[in-house]
Amino acid sequence: MSRIWNFSAGPAALPQAVLERARDEMLDFHGTGMSVMEMSHRGKPFMEVAEKAEADLRKLMGIPDDYAVLFLQGGATGQFSAIPMNLQPGGQPMDYIDTGAWSGKAIKEAQKVGPVNIVASSQAEGYASIPERSTWKLDPNAAYVHYTPNETIGGVEFHEVPDVGDKPLVADMSSTILSRPIDVSKFGVIYAGAQKNIGPAGVTVVIVRKDLLEREKGQVPAVLDWKLQADNDSMYNTPPTFGWYFAGLVFEWLLEQGGLEKMAEINQRKADKLYRFIDNSAFYRNPVEPSARSWMNVPFILADDSLDGPFLKEADAAGLSSLKGHRSVGGMRASIYNAVPEEAVDALIEFMADFEERHA
Amino acid sequence: MSRIWNFSAGPAALPQAVLERARDEMLDFHGTGMSVMEMSHRGKPFMEVAEKAEADLRKLMGIPDDYAVLFLQGGATGQFSAIPMNLQPGGQPMDYIDTGAWSGKAIKEAQKVGPVNIVASSQAEGYASIPERSTWKLDPNAAYVHYTPNETIGGVEFHEVPDVGDKPLVADMSSTILSRPIDVSKFGVIYAGAQKNIGPAGVTVVIVRKDLLEREKGQVPAVLDWKLQADNDSMYNTPPTFGWYFAGLVFEWLLEQGGLEKMAEINQRKADKLYRFIDNSAFYRNPVEPSARSWMNVPFILADDSLDGPFLKEADAAGLSSLKGHRSVGGMRASIYNAVPEEAVDALIEFMADFEERHA
Repeated sequence: MSRIWNFSAGPAALPQAVLERARDEMLDFHGTGMSVMEMSHRGKPFMEVAEKAEADLRKLMGIPDDYAVLFLQGGATGQFSAIPMNLQPGGQPMDYIDTGAWSGKAIKEAQKVGPVNIVASSQAEGYASIPERSTWKLDPNAAYVHYTPNETIGGVEFHEVPDVGDKPLVADMSSTILSRPIDVSKFGVIYAGAQKNIGPAGVTVVIVRKDLLEREKGQVPAVLDWKLQADNDSMYNTPPTFGWYFAGLVFEWLLEQGGLEKMAEINQRKADKLYRFIDNSAFYRNPVEPSARSWMNVPFILADDSLDGPFLKEADAAGLSSLKGHRSVGGMRASIYNAVPEEAVDALIEFMADFEERHA
Repeated sequence: MSRIWNFSAGPAALPQAVLERARDEMLDFHGTGMSVMEMSHRGKPFMEVAEKAEADLRKLMGIPDDYAVLFLQGGATGQFSAIPMNLQPGGQPMDYIDTGAWSGKAIKEAQKVGPVNIVASSQAEGYASIPERSTWKLDPNAAYVHYTPNETIGGVEFHEVPDVGDKPLVADMSSTILSRPIDVSKFGVIYAGAQKNIGPAGVTVVIVRKDLLEREKGQVPAVLDWKLQADNDSMYNTPPTFGWYFAGLVFEWLLEQGGLEKMAEINQRKADKLYRFIDNSAFYRNPVEPSARSWMNVPFILADDSLDGPFLKEADAAGLSSLKGHRSVGGMRASIYNAVPEEAVDALIEFMADFEERHA
């Protein structure tokens, strides 16, 4: 077996130690004689797995007691629908900040439910920056304010939590959750698809302030109904048990690494060295405004795009995988989530320098 | 490692050979240097996994070309909402047959969307039988007819596909899919949560006749929109890749076993011998009308319910796990899906006979 360095944007690299543990206990979970995939979600062994995963996530993120934590299905895209359905009693406007592809998808789903107010947009600047807070046009009647702290495709990230007064702030943290400490109490709702920093695709974590569960709402499909799921410990219907278990192993691994302070330190160092290398080169370029550059997703373009093909081919041969940029923007993208070690970033930079030397 | 016999109703036993294969390739899928969980769903290796899983399912079930096959999230409960949202343009009645707990949940979700007509119900008989087809009151204006071919909790199964004329027949096959051959062309929609006969919880298979994708409909959340998902090969959003892959391994295993004709033969033999043993005993009893007994879920009650505790405890000690009946009905239930071998049923019968001898 030979593992490569995996820069996939998601589904993405997972900690090798966690994969090994899941492998080793796959046929017999803790002496039960069955796989964790084969057991009832309501039985004691799985309930313990589920509760520990939640407790560890609460510990990692410092989630206050007045927040519910849900483990659901449907990805962030499911939550794009769930948010307006759970938070908007009918007819009220909803505030959205538009910073790229994922904001756009969230807006599209919200528009199916009610009127959306675009508070600010960086579309005119090619989504390469964050709109200045002073330019935002919040609607005083909005049910909530939604934003995308990290745009996986554009590689644009908010490094501060925006102040939106007393409106519930709703954040799609799919590609930045667990990359650093955050103050959960500043948010109404935090949600994230698992397949970047949490675990395998198919689990969605939703952290919601409990008072928001009591909002008046219309008819909501059971699988998207936060209150119903919270009242049933995320088990109104059968949860994605293997993914929930695996997420729990990742949370344990993060605690063993030293928690989110430590991950932030490593993640910032990884990102800084990669951006510094790119900025010092005339061969590679990152299009994002420096203050808005993502720690997790680093897009870069080659000055000569006829070299894209050779770059990807040679990178693959060097054991550096999944560097192709999203089909909507082209170029390259290195996603350097928690499970991508600093060693992988070093190997990437070394390869990029060597490639430049041979082709510049 | 010591594996037990697992009679869980779901998540349920999986084929040991499949678990072993998933374990063995967990850290390095086919020489890619990464887990199948860590790769982009849009990359070539996963696309091949996804396509092969669909092709094998089509082969196993004989799914005609004019049916789409979707691999979604949200379980059958998600589809309880998706069905009325995708099939009912607004205001039209929807026909539902009520044969137990799962029919009831499907009806509840449909009622959020529009008017439901209960065509027939076995509630008055304690859901221990199937309402005679001649008593059904179909609505001539109904958008479709929904039924639950196998009720996992009650252990009641339709052994014939009901004739509902030219209305689309919609079937929740969660706990009976792949247990025997069926004529897919008799259905408008077949759907199933994976966690009984397909794979791990978190994948939902939807087989839908393509003309039904073109029905006029209202606003549907993207994750529940069949047409959107069909147009995007079930990848409008990130699919549950590990579950999809695992389902594919189960389909391969079923083809290796000889396909659904062979599984039907084994499943019928397993069920027949267990029911025969129960019927010949005054100590155990199955409450279901013989012609409606499920091949997959066999509930049984002990004449003396003070022995329930000892029965479960001794069964567990004998390596027979998860026999407790659903909390809503009590007693015992043996779920004997495809992955539960005949040997397990023999061991169960032997234990039951021995327990009876010692306690009768």
